[in-house]
Amino acid sequence: MADDLNKGLEGVLVAESDLSFIDGDTGRLIYRGYAIEDLARGASFEEVLYLLWHGELPTEPQLAEFADTMAAEREVDDDLLETVRALAEADEEPMAALRTATSMLSAYEPERDVADDDLEAALRKGRRITAKIPTILAAFERFRQGEEPIDPDPERGLAEDFLHMFTGEEPTDVAVETFDQALTLHADHGLNASTFTAMVIGSTMADVYAAVTGGIGALSGSLHGGANQDVMEVLFEIDESDLTPHDWVEKATEEGRRIPGFGHRVYNVKDPRAHILQERSRELAEEGDPKWYDITSTIEEYLTEEKGLVEKGIAPNVDFYSGSVYYQLGIPIDMYTPIFAMSRAGGWIAHVLEYQEDNRLIRPRARYTGAEDAEFVPIEDR
Amino acid sequence: MADDLNKGLEGVLVAESDLSFIDGDTGRLIYRGYAIEDLARGASFEEVLYLLWHGELPTEPQLAEFADTMAAEREVDDDLLETVRALAEADEEPMAALRTATSMLSAYEPERDVADDDLEAALRKGRRITAKIPTILAAFERFRQGEEPIDPDPERGLAEDFLHMFTGEEPTDVAVETFDQALTLHADHGLNASTFTAMVIGSTMADVYAAVTGGIGALSGSLHGGANQDVMEVLFEIDESDLTPHDWVEKATEEGRRIPGFGHRVYNVKDPRAHILQERSRELAEEGDPKWYDITSTIEEYLTEEKGLVEKGIAPNVDFYSGSVYYQLGIPIDMYTPIFAMSRAGGWIAHVLEYQEDNRLIRPRARYTGAEDAEFVPIEDR
Repeated sequence: MADDLNKGLEGVLVAESDLSFIDGDTGRLIYRGYAIEDLARGASFEEVLYLLWHGELPTEPQLAEFADTMAAEREVDDDLLETVRALAEADEEPMAALRTATSMLSAYEPERDVADDDLEAALRKGRRITAKIPTILAAFERFRQGEEPIDPDPERGLAEDFLHMFTGEEPTDVAVETFDQALTLHADHGLNASTFTAMVIGSTMADVYAAVTGGIGALSGSLHGGANQDVMEVLFEIDESDLTPHDWVEKATEEGRRIPGFGHRVYNVKDPRAHILQERSRELAEEGDPKWYDITSTIEEYLTEEKGLVEKGIAPNVDFYSGSVYYQLGIPIDMYTPIFAMSRAGGWIAHVLEYQEDNRLIRPRARYTGAEDAEFVPIEDR
Repeated sequence: MADDLNKGLEGVLVAESDLSFIDGDTGRLIYRGYAIEDLARGASFEEVLYLLWHGELPTEPQLAEFADTMAAEREVDDDLLETVRALAEADEEPMAALRTATSMLSAYEPERDVADDDLEAALRKGRRITAKIPTILAAFERFRQGEEPIDPDPERGLAEDFLHMFTGEEPTDVAVETFDQALTLHADHGLNASTFTAMVIGSTMADVYAAVTGGIGALSGSLHGGANQDVMEVLFEIDESDLTPHDWVEKATEEGRRIPGFGHRVYNVKDPRAHILQERSRELAEEGDPKWYDITSTIEEYLTEEKGLVEKGIAPNVDFYSGSVYYQLGIPIDMYTPIFAMSRAGGWIAHVLEYQEDNRLIRPRARYTGAEDAEFVPIEDR
């Protein structure tokens, strides 16, 4: 192995982890042993964060204390809001704005000066980051709408408070429940590129602010986050075309066009998260406009049944249904990836702290393929 | 190899690279084939950036155009300066402040909306980041001294302009030359943890702002940047003690104390960068206070000759001399790692662009060691 090139590190084991496990052949995702379906349907996002960070599901008093502490930590510093305002005025990309604002949070961290191997303090820092990301994203959205931000309300749960701060309206129960489930579904997913980025940064014993900021950067790449935006754009295109959804997707596949939201490097069957989001999309459709659910289910039916893609291991992934779910919740499509980050921050923090408990600096090698003995010629003689 | 755990990825080859090569047994470091000694002594930092980014040393007209463009790009947006002011007022750590401000630069990037695979545009973005980091660091220092920032002066080279903006004084020729050499010496060094972080982020096709921000985060960890600060603290301690440097280091080693700045994961002999910085430290001592050079050379002599550490593969590394060099240039010790970042940004950008040319998403695996089939119990029954 010493001289093999492992480009992309595919299949290379870099750590042991108790956090999440994916069985791509049976479509199973678990967090610390619990099926994602049970967690999404039976636990709040705060409960899931507690599970990821503390190793077990909380009791009612434990959850109450944890959720209350996080709720009280949603508030952000005024200077930070001014920076978010400047970013909105500069029309910054939402993921880049989130990266800058999350990075800036460390300036106001009350335990900034603790030792870097105090992992209990690190977990509290991580909790504060996760509490404040919803506030940052909502403020950014309000500023770019020309409105002032809405203060966090510690009486509300995280999902509800985000929707309230973000939309300025009282969210419905279905909306809150749906959004909370979406957060749970995205909280962790093995060592994807953003989680691995956070771990590499954490392996230098840099703090969780550095690690989460790096994770946001990695998630902003088009090969990582962002596929649910592509799905939504296809849905818009279908809606605006003269064809029925069935005829549109038939024509598109005949033309060899790739439909986003299908297929996943890890899953060979339908992503378990897609099943749950599909349910929610149907419920939202019953409350409001059935259009988006109808289009997505027609596409899925056509591709999986008529075209038989499932037999080829290509099935709907989480992004296929999350796009239309977020759209039905009134969230602009360029905020889908930032919302992914709001949730995945929980997983990044869990992985960083788990790795730091038995830390080893991550430092691979490159095979040098450059010149060997170049003769230096001073610039005046070149 | 499939099931071996590669914690830390030590020895694992993740890429091919033409950028830098280290021979730890002979103490040799090259950038694109050129010996680091030739580059440090015969080329400016801008020339070295050109070499890393464009693959060859520039001619005089090429360098003039490149350096002029970079000089014109040193200016930063006023809103960004306000954020830097807020960070200084919040007494933020310099590395965290640099991370936030560098991340924020993307909001003002003129080519923000180009396609993510336009690598020529990506290189121009990287050049702008590298041009602006000195301005950010100098402004942060001025703000925390209670002063207003000094505008960049495009008539000056990067090293000179940084020292001028940072100290508010006209730097001497020896200071400029020394600082320029230090930048060259730190510009690249294989796949260390911060460079690898930037590559993992870049492998998602995230932009160079995301990659450099992540690199800064990784470099802020105590296991990566920062050792030259530790060296300087030891030098202060020796200076304040009643013992001669020789007696202090003899006593310290008898007490089993580890002296920072000795030994390196990659070098078994004296780091070639340490040789060059030692020369510069001596020159600065001749101009000013000989104290720091005397202490460092006494420690080196004692450890290498009297204690024979060199035979054990433990020799002075780059940090052993850079600390006292920066100190003699009037730079506060908590700015040493940010200055490292100012230089290494050049290497991060070079590695990210080289990797993206033949990109593959970096996504390793973790071995799952957690619970398998945990039974979900609703919270009211826990």
